[in-house]
Amino acid sequence: MAEDTGRGTSRRAFLRGSVAAGGAVLGAGMAQAADPDPLITTVQPWAQGFGDGVDATPYGLPIRFEEDVIRRNVEWLTADTISSINFTPIHALDGTITPAGCAFERHHSGAIELAKEDYRLMINGLVETPMVFSYADLERFPRENHVYFCECAANSGMEWAGAQLNGAQFTHGMIHNMEYSGIPLRTLLAEAGWSGETEGKWVYVEGADASSNGRSIPMEKALDDCLVAIKANGEALRKEHGYPARLVVPGWEGNMWVKWIRRIEVMDGPVESREETSKYTDTLADGTSRKWTWVMDAKSVVTSPSPQMPITHGQGPVVITGMAWSGHGRITRVDVSKDGGKTWETARLAREGENKALTRFYLDTVWEGEEWLLQSRAIDETGYVQPTKAQLREVRGLNSIYHNNAIQTWWIKSNGEAENVEVS
Amino acid sequence: MAEDTGRGTSRRAFLRGSVAAGGAVLGAGMAQAADPDPLITTVQPWAQGFGDGVDATPYGLPIRFEEDVIRRNVEWLTADTISSINFTPIHALDGTITPAGCAFERHHSGAIELAKEDYRLMINGLVETPMVFSYADLERFPRENHVYFCECAANSGMEWAGAQLNGAQFTHGMIHNMEYSGIPLRTLLAEAGWSGETEGKWVYVEGADASSNGRSIPMEKALDDCLVAIKANGEALRKEHGYPARLVVPGWEGNMWVKWIRRIEVMDGPVESREETSKYTDTLADGTSRKWTWVMDAKSVVTSPSPQMPITHGQGPVVITGMAWSGHGRITRVDVSKDGGKTWETARLAREGENKALTRFYLDTVWEGEEWLLQSRAIDETGYVQPTKAQLREVRGLNSIYHNNAIQTWWIKSNGEAENVEVS
Repeated sequence: MAEDTGRGTSRRAFLRGSVAAGGAVLGAGMAQAADPDPLITTVQPWAQGFGDGVDATPYGLPIRFEEDVIRRNVEWLTADTISSINFTPIHALDGTITPAGCAFERHHSGAIELAKEDYRLMINGLVETPMVFSYADLERFPRENHVYFCECAANSGMEWAGAQLNGAQFTHGMIHNMEYSGIPLRTLLAEAGWSGETEGKWVYVEGADASSNGRSIPMEKALDDCLVAIKANGEALRKEHGYPARLVVPGWEGNMWVKWIRRIEVMDGPVESREETSKYTDTLADGTSRKWTWVMDAKSVVTSPSPQMPITHGQGPVVITGMAWSGHGRITRVDVSKDGGKTWETARLAREGENKALTRFYLDTVWEGEEWLLQSRAIDETGYVQPTKAQLREVRGLNSIYHNNAIQTWWIKSNGEAENVEVS
Repeated sequence: MAEDTGRGTSRRAFLRGSVAAGGAVLGAGMAQAADPDPLITTVQPWAQGFGDGVDATPYGLPIRFEEDVIRRNVEWLTADTISSINFTPIHALDGTITPAGCAFERHHSGAIELAKEDYRLMINGLVETPMVFSYADLERFPRENHVYFCECAANSGMEWAGAQLNGAQFTHGMIHNMEYSGIPLRTLLAEAGWSGETEGKWVYVEGADASSNGRSIPMEKALDDCLVAIKANGEALRKEHGYPARLVVPGWEGNMWVKWIRRIEVMDGPVESREETSKYTDTLADGTSRKWTWVMDAKSVVTSPSPQMPITHGQGPVVITGMAWSGHGRITRVDVSKDGGKTWETARLAREGENKALTRFYLDTVWEGEEWLLQSRAIDETGYVQPTKAQLREVRGLNSIYHNNAIQTWWIKSNGEAENVEVS
């Protein structure tokens, strides 16, 4: 694209190279000056006849040109499809809401099919009155609506040892962000007569699938903002997201967001289940393990340009975009570096950060074919700054799988391609 | 369900009828006291083996139990499927975001399939430099993210003459609410050199389909908040919503949100096209017509209970819910009446109303089998109060098709069924 000719403001001349003055207008990147563009000058087939009716697909799917924008698995990462991870195509998305159809999901013994009529949720243990709720019961309690991100503790886990996976979908795609409608867990606990006077300081939650995926949650969190969600993005949860009801544990690791939730036991201590001992703990350099590492710390990633989204339009204006989030609350700032962290520019947030929800950021800039070491770093309302990989390794060593919230680097090459790299 | 026994607070006893004290717990609505519920006491098939892998459906669809939650047409309303209206199943949704797969769509000559490579957007007329943008060009401009409702001017149009369609999906389902990522129209106009010094006080916008659906928009609105949207709910627009780019005209009638937008002409006056003269004007009692009735006034509807969502769980607690919106800005209050508008209770808003976006409201109440004449009325930040049908008819007569934002009444019968009725 052409440089600013000096005739107008730089914005005015933003795409000046893409047009011919006067009547003979041209699309950017099209053939030379005077050739008429048939897409402009002739009536196209889609403007002549009738398009398709929509009744044939009453629940719509994306247009066929977008067939690449789908969840993807990493074959070597998990044993087989009954314990797989399907990553969100974050490289191709914008905004903040993740459509359910391409929202990441991870399961431990397959996605089960549980009808509403067969659904039961038991609350037992240290409560006045053990109870079982049907799905219809859940619908009768006052419910709330909140947008929250859900991130797997293992998101970016493959990157601890070095730059491995070549695409934001694979390095950072174990995350989604949806609007949940659900019943506060505190409401259900109160219904069962948990009064705060019992010894019950923890809840143990488990799902109806064969793995049961049991996890212990401190009562303080259970009473604070946990939801038993029955809708996501306005509609019923998808099968793979826990239909008909899942636990939402805002800001905390996705493994605790138990799907197909069937039981909540009030206890006097944590269970120390498989999913919180041999799994979902962080082995340090000295062989000891951090446990109860529930909160997902502030993190961000540039989604475009990135390995799956190279710069293909040549030099000139380019929009750098990505997303940021924090389990501690709101994102207040995101910085972008083009030189591997030596210098930083403050990105534009699409809207004010929301509590424990994805924030979209943009840096509207110009690329002149130079190489970039492109990074983003998130800062949340607590003042926490997303760390570098070196900083994180210094504290955690190299044995970890979970909770890698380090700054990601994409090497943008002079041909516009991008590659996952590390900077020292 | 049982009444409060007096042992606890009413919340504590909310569903007391649904449990047996001690060990033998029962689901609500299940058989009598001591019968064990096999869904609790025996290991179910879905907890024994493995569920389904998800890789087989990389772009996911709703679970088969939700196959009723789909867009629906009203056969007699439009001639055939090339000019049809497919209504959002608002009765079955919650929250505010409408999933694209079930979001209403209306087209005038079918939903066309237009590839990004074939897409062109021309800006011509009273501008310094006529321009044509490719899709790749659009992606290079600074973009914004906003959640907006889109309502067809004809939503509830069939109800002008009396209560006709028995379901919120059909009376109020020509609406959706999505998060758009797009380029401000003012940015594109500035790029083409519209300076405000020309005579260009209007834009005329048209789509690439055979209908072209041309509409005139005053420059003030074009510069204010219109977007050329390239994403909805984070992903590419669906074919039926205008892939790859549509105009977003926040708060104004959906017909102006031109899909597959191909041209924006800056003009010194409106075109007075078919779509803004013989259509999309409101014929009054004296035979004259109101024109330029662009803004969608404040409106609301109870989505549950409603004819498609009867009360099936018997007496006791029930959540009344619905949605409210205003083309003039934020919703500040929603009231609910159970007696056809004689008395009103203030509903709970799920979150603070947002500018020109859907607001979800709830009234957590108790139903004891009495008949209700259930209504909701929205109030927006301008102080405007949603009118009754009688008030609207007094001003507009009975000849109108468009802009019916009157209060809707559902007759809730003693058996829990609901019917579309009018109250005098």
